[in-house]
Amino acid sequence: MMSNPIRVLVWNEGRHEKKNPKVQAMYPNGLHDAIAKPLREAGFSVKTATIDDPEHGLTEAALAETDVLTWWGHIAHKEVSDEIVERVQKRVLDGMGLVVLHSGHHSKIFRKLMGTTCDLKWREADERERIWVVAPHHPIAEGLGEYFEIPREEMYGEFFDIPQPDELVLVSWFQGGEIFRSGCCYQRGRGKIFYFRPGHETYPTYYQREVLQVIVNGVNWAAPGNSPKLIFGNHKPLEVIMPHEG
Amino acid sequence: MMSNPIRVLVWNEGRHEKKNPKVQAMYPNGLHDAIAKPLREAGFSVKTATIDDPEHGLTEAALAETDVLTWWGHIAHKEVSDEIVERVQKRVLDGMGLVVLHSGHHSKIFRKLMGTTCDLKWREADERERIWVVAPHHPIAEGLGEYFEIPREEMYGEFFDIPQPDELVLVSWFQGGEIFRSGCCYQRGRGKIFYFRPGHETYPTYYQREVLQVIVNGVNWAAPGNSPKLIFGNHKPLEVIMPHEG
Amino acid sequence: MMSNPIRVLVWNEGRHEKKNPKVQAMYPNGLHDAIAKPLREAGFSVKTATIDDPEHGLTEAALAETDVLTWWGHIAHKEVSDEIVERVQKRVLDGMGLVVLHSGHHSKIFRKLMGTTCDLKWREADERERIWVVAPHHPIAEGLGEYFEIPREEMYGEFFDIPQPDELVLVSWFQGGEIFRSGCCYQRGRGKIFYFRPGHETYPTYYQREVLQVIVNGVNWAAPGNSPKLIFGNHKPLEVIMPHEG
Amino acid sequence: MMSNPIRVLVWNEGRHEKKNPKVQAMYPNGLHDAIAKPLREAGFSVKTATIDDPEHGLTEAALAETDVLTWWGHIAHKEVSDEIVERVQKRVLDGMGLVVLHSGHHSKIFRKLMGTTCDLKWREADERERIWVVAPHHPIAEGLGEYFEIPREEMYGEFFDIPQPDELVLVSWFQGGEIFRSGCCYQRGRGKIFYFRPGHETYPTYYQREVLQVIVNGVNWAAPGNSPKLIFGNHKPLEVIMPHEG
Repeated sequence: MMSNPIRVLVWNEGRHEKKNPKVQAMYPNGLHDAIAKPLREAGFSVKTATIDDPEHGLTEAALAETDVLTWWGHIAHKEVSDEIVERVQKRVLDGMGLVVLHSGHHSKIFRKLMGTTCDLKWREADERERIWVVAPHHPIAEGLGEYFEIPREEMYGEFFDIPQPDELVLVSWFQGGEIFRSGCCYQRGRGKIFYFRPGHETYPTYYQREVLQVIVNGVNWAAPGNSPKLIFGNHKPLEVIMPHEG
Repeated sequence: MMSNPIRVLVWNEGRHEKKNPKVQAMYPNGLHDAIAKPLREAGFSVKTATIDDPEHGLTEAALAETDVLTWWGHIAHKEVSDEIVERVQKRVLDGMGLVVLHSGHHSKIFRKLMGTTCDLKWREADERERIWVVAPHHPIAEGLGEYFEIPREEMYGEFFDIPQPDELVLVSWFQGGEIFRSGCCYQRGRGKIFYFRPGHETYPTYYQREVLQVIVNGVNWAAPGNSPKLIFGNHKPLEVIMPHEG
Repeated sequence: MMSNPIRVLVWNEGRHEKKNPKVQAMYPNGLHDAIAKPLREAGFSVKTATIDDPEHGLTEAALAETDVLTWWGHIAHKEVSDEIVERVQKRVLDGMGLVVLHSGHHSKIFRKLMGTTCDLKWREADERERIWVVAPHHPIAEGLGEYFEIPREEMYGEFFDIPQPDELVLVSWFQGGEIFRSGCCYQRGRGKIFYFRPGHETYPTYYQREVLQVIVNGVNWAAPGNSPKLIFGNHKPLEVIMPHEG
Repeated sequence: MMSNPIRVLVWNEGRHEKKNPKVQAMYPNGLHDAIAKPLREAGFSVKTATIDDPEHGLTEAALAETDVLTWWGHIAHKEVSDEIVERVQKRVLDGMGLVVLHSGHHSKIFRKLMGTTCDLKWREADERERIWVVAPHHPIAEGLGEYFEIPREEMYGEFFDIPQPDELVLVSWFQGGEIFRSGCCYQRGRGKIFYFRPGHETYPTYYQREVLQVIVNGVNWAAPGNSPKLIFGNHKPLEVIMPHEG
């Protein structure tokens, strides 16, 4: 367990906010600001960064001081530098937690860590989403009921081209007939990754209590502990190699 | 996260200690005392119970006040009352954590929760055991190195007749040629279960730092949170059932 | 791979058919007859049995000649003999496949193998069910599309109190707002278990092509191969125990 | 199930054979020839390819005619073209099976599909390896005993930096004190991937019966079936979107 506050870096592409008045009205200080606020209130130490910051705000120094990175991106995935994606991957494998939100499913970093296309079905039709907990024992379900609803959201539907989650925590029902694996946990190296579906930029999703609770839970779950240091390469045997009698 | 100390009940069969001078010498106040001590030092609120206590020390009241139950048994599994085993199972499904130690693999409660025989291979030959971490990201690996060794232990070997673990954290190497899935995590209902292999009654295993660290980690991991209350049975639909056009 | 036809025993409680004219009209020769027919057409060697047969039709001899057992029960779970349930469990652990259908979720044998209550939510309201494939790579998805629909079915909803499936293949969407893990794979001992949700006794579900395809696939998947014989108990070390230098 | 023979492409780097007399003596026609022979005897339709073939022998046409690709590489991973690696990945996601052997753990294709470094410990010391089956129910264990031994092999040790396997089938014990997850199953898209540890180029490993049995089993398991065609992108709702009453 960590005694100091978990250090969270809330990363947001930040482009919709520059172009779309509807998004500006919904998230006047950017999606990152809306996501950062409840994390601060939960007691985390929170910074934010966007794609247009130098090195996308993901310098070696910034990442070294980050326990958990949250990621929201959509229309500018391709503009994220490959070199910086590799840097983030390296930090995740070394233990930094990663919480990928909504359209971040198509980000370079998530696809790189999954090894798949992360493609899915989608529809924008103001549909009701009902999110069911299928792993009530899991820390990410902390403080939730059996399900919660989002009145209007973009639909995401299966097949979601991801590896089978290590742990499947949440499954969404959509009004138009689809289901979706909405809360998915993965391990990569010493790091933990949580994908969480909701959060279309034109809806007030990131102001909804249950959604924020899940993000807080995801950060707590993904935060690194004092895990074993890993050594690779040529390895000496147990004192003396035991005699071979084959 | 729990603000109050996690309440642990350390259950020990306690029969070897009554019969075997070697065990008495190694664990003069019983295995439960040795296991309880480091848990108290870790800040948990700890009680102990043995098979010869009234209702095996597992009354409804005792279980209601227990967050995590640890279980060590060996020669008297059959003497544990079926009714009390069902009571413990019910509490686990309702969220109480369970940490099963060593020969507890053959306890009624573990077999009931697994649905399998939980049979394995074994040998008592003073062998060295080397326990490797295969899930460095996992909270149960907290504070460990890549592996640790127990100088002399009883061997347990595969095939271990358990369901595939939800998460496999530790794998043992034995001098005589076997491997064993030694740290296994399961979910059942709202409860979490951790099986941890070491702890033959004639060895000083429960005085070894790394072994105690794993047990402390296991208790922390298995402790219940504020998880969703579960409702079963006849369920009303979303407000009105939507019209059927099939 | 098996060269001879897979031997399937289709077990059906068979009580609804004796009492309910609606079920009699739907399945005039019993649910077992409807389920057996497409399995025969798929090339399996198929027998049937019901609860009212001697020893429920599950004699040692009958089980010894069965590669895969399919199970449908509902109102008489409690009448199934505990001794015979243990017999079936033993055969599953020794390799016999088990395909559990619909209300069989509450059968003694399924609950015994799962270690949980297998409780769920339900509703009878003529709702549409849409079943999505979330594991397209899996042999149980063979020959299906991305989803298929059942025009009218009983609803089953989460939380479904089962262990996390080893592989989750199918997830249902229901008109009234629920989702359900409808196709779940498990391993127990040398045996494989597949739970498949659909099949309320008053609907023509077991005449629907996709449903039958899934049952055929489930039998193929669960059929035993030439798997390792398992040995338990005291085990000799690798030739000589290697010297101990600890 | 496939009626026609499974079409296997055995890919081998083929560089050791050109330089190292020891390897030439052991595998006079190349590792690919040794691996292809038992696959042909098992009834598969087998072709081979090496890194020095045009497009590494992995043309679009060649991959289109391949059901399962097996991969052995070691010293020239970096020379494999990124473009061709992407081509292979695409085919795997579309259903082609992939069996990765030994030092192929560090191949670009395996690392790309895993999302991790796939680093490990190793040692060349003529050690005995004992490979245990921990999933006796699995088709990849078909025809094996509880374990088999390789008299002399290179050691690979944990931590092996891979995602947690969907199914862990084999675990190795090494004389010098290590264990290793030696048989690991994964799903990616519609494709199945099997990693199998043994096969250092200077040992007669690929002439050993049990090793060949596992490779044959791996090909059978990884072969694609008639799995659902996947559709991604904008998706129409169930007939009419149901009215929103939120």
